[in-house]
Amino acid sequence: MPDKSPNRAAGNPQQIEFTQADRDSLYKTIFNRRDVRSQFKPDAIPDDVLARILNAAHHAPSVGFMQPWNFMVIRSNEVRQKVHQAFLKANVEAAEMFSDAKQKQYKSLKLEGILESPMNLCITCDRDKAGPVVLGRTHIKSMDLNSTVCAVQNLWLAARAENVGVGWVSIIEQEALQDALGIPLNIIPVAYLCMGYVSHFKDKPELETKDWRKRLPLKELIYFDQWDQQKSAEEDQLIAEVGKLGE
Amino acid sequence: MPDKSPNRAAGNPQQIEFTQADRDSLYKTIFNRRDVRSQFKPDAIPDDVLARILNAAHHAPSVGFMQPWNFMVIRSNEVRQKVHQAFLKANVEAAEMFSDAKQKQYKSLKLEGILESPMNLCITCDRDKAGPVVLGRTHIKSMDLNSTVCAVQNLWLAARAENVGVGWVSIIEQEALQDALGIPLNIIPVAYLCMGYVSHFKDKPELETKDWRKRLPLKELIYFDQWDQQKSAEEDQLIAEVGKLGE
Repeated sequence: MPDKSPNRAAGNPQQIEFTQADRDSLYKTIFNRRDVRSQFKPDAIPDDVLARILNAAHHAPSVGFMQPWNFMVIRSNEVRQKVHQAFLKANVEAAEMFSDAKQKQYKSLKLEGILESPMNLCITCDRDKAGPVVLGRTHIKSMDLNSTVCAVQNLWLAARAENVGVGWVSIIEQEALQDALGIPLNIIPVAYLCMGYVSHFKDKPELETKDWRKRLPLKELIYFDQWDQQKSAEEDQLIAEVGKLGE
Repeated sequence: MPDKSPNRAAGNPQQIEFTQADRDSLYKTIFNRRDVRSQFKPDAIPDDVLARILNAAHHAPSVGFMQPWNFMVIRSNEVRQKVHQAFLKANVEAAEMFSDAKQKQYKSLKLEGILESPMNLCITCDRDKAGPVVLGRTHIKSMDLNSTVCAVQNLWLAARAENVGVGWVSIIEQEALQDALGIPLNIIPVAYLCMGYVSHFKDKPELETKDWRKRLPLKELIYFDQWDQQKSAEEDQLIAEVGKLGE
């Protein structure tokens, strides 16, 4: 959906200007997006809002312009009960993998909103959507899955700006999800999302405030030219600039 | 980076308001983001701009708050020559996979800007970043790779709003990339990106305007409750709303 400004002349395209206000809005959306598990309200998302959110997902980049995604809107309570059962089974198994204090903390966390959110959405990847040979997928076979995740992130940001909460449920067997949704085995359910309006968005990621893990300092994650080659703020101005950002 | 507005009281958080202007800016960014291959200018990206773009990537969602990513800033010409050689090798192999007219068209496409962009960036995923058991990765092992792709998409959008072009190079062997960048075999180079200012951003994806593939109608990609269960605009208002969006 390119800009259709009237002063865009054919053959002499006027470049779209991005303003400081545009950047502020984007960063505000990125920094305030949350994985929502607990604060869903039952109100339905209006169809025009959902249409815009799905359209944002559909405008993600895709390898070879493959657009390998489908969007499964799940409102049926029966289907969601099946998915919820599959989550419960996996979650018991997951808890067992943690030991001692971490297991106790794990069990105290609410990790999905499958039934209390007004709708779920499954974003899938059809790996055969564009035939066996796909431009850009010839050497890295997972590029179509990557494209689908880009669609998930577009959707997540659009939802946040529309004040809609999204939570990604990943504690579930892929086969159980395919079974509950009637998805053929060659189609990958990449993301199962709970969506709806929320009582509030949290300030920070829940796993951060509950000390599950800390946010890592960005400057320590930046390498130069070769793996593990870090630089100090004195050695490289990029690190100095990262230091000015705060957390 | 939560909002730090002075009127946000502890224990009674004031919810951040998203305005129509915020949504317009986000959708403008999403719809005008492009995979850039040909229009790079040599000008360096200022370090404060690059710092903001990397910070946006670092605020992507991550499974179990794992933050499995590193950001490798590649400015060295020697390293980029190695990566470029690996691209050239893979691209010859890739062309051979297409037949007849499609092969001719493939060979006419410019698919990377490794050497003419002022910098490259490799975003990696360290699968061992948070120990063997990761909250949310117990049943779907690729969730850490998915988190890393979310960081790529955040970066891509932030770059667009900063007027910086990004192109994802995927026609390359993973091992060749690890070798050129000194990346250990257990670290996955998820995305190799060319970044820089550009002479112009294209209106539409290049593979769309060059008729490699068409954009698929969104309404045909939406299913309800079960795989392949489509509805008409008369049957479901969501489809009617999608129809109003235009392409």
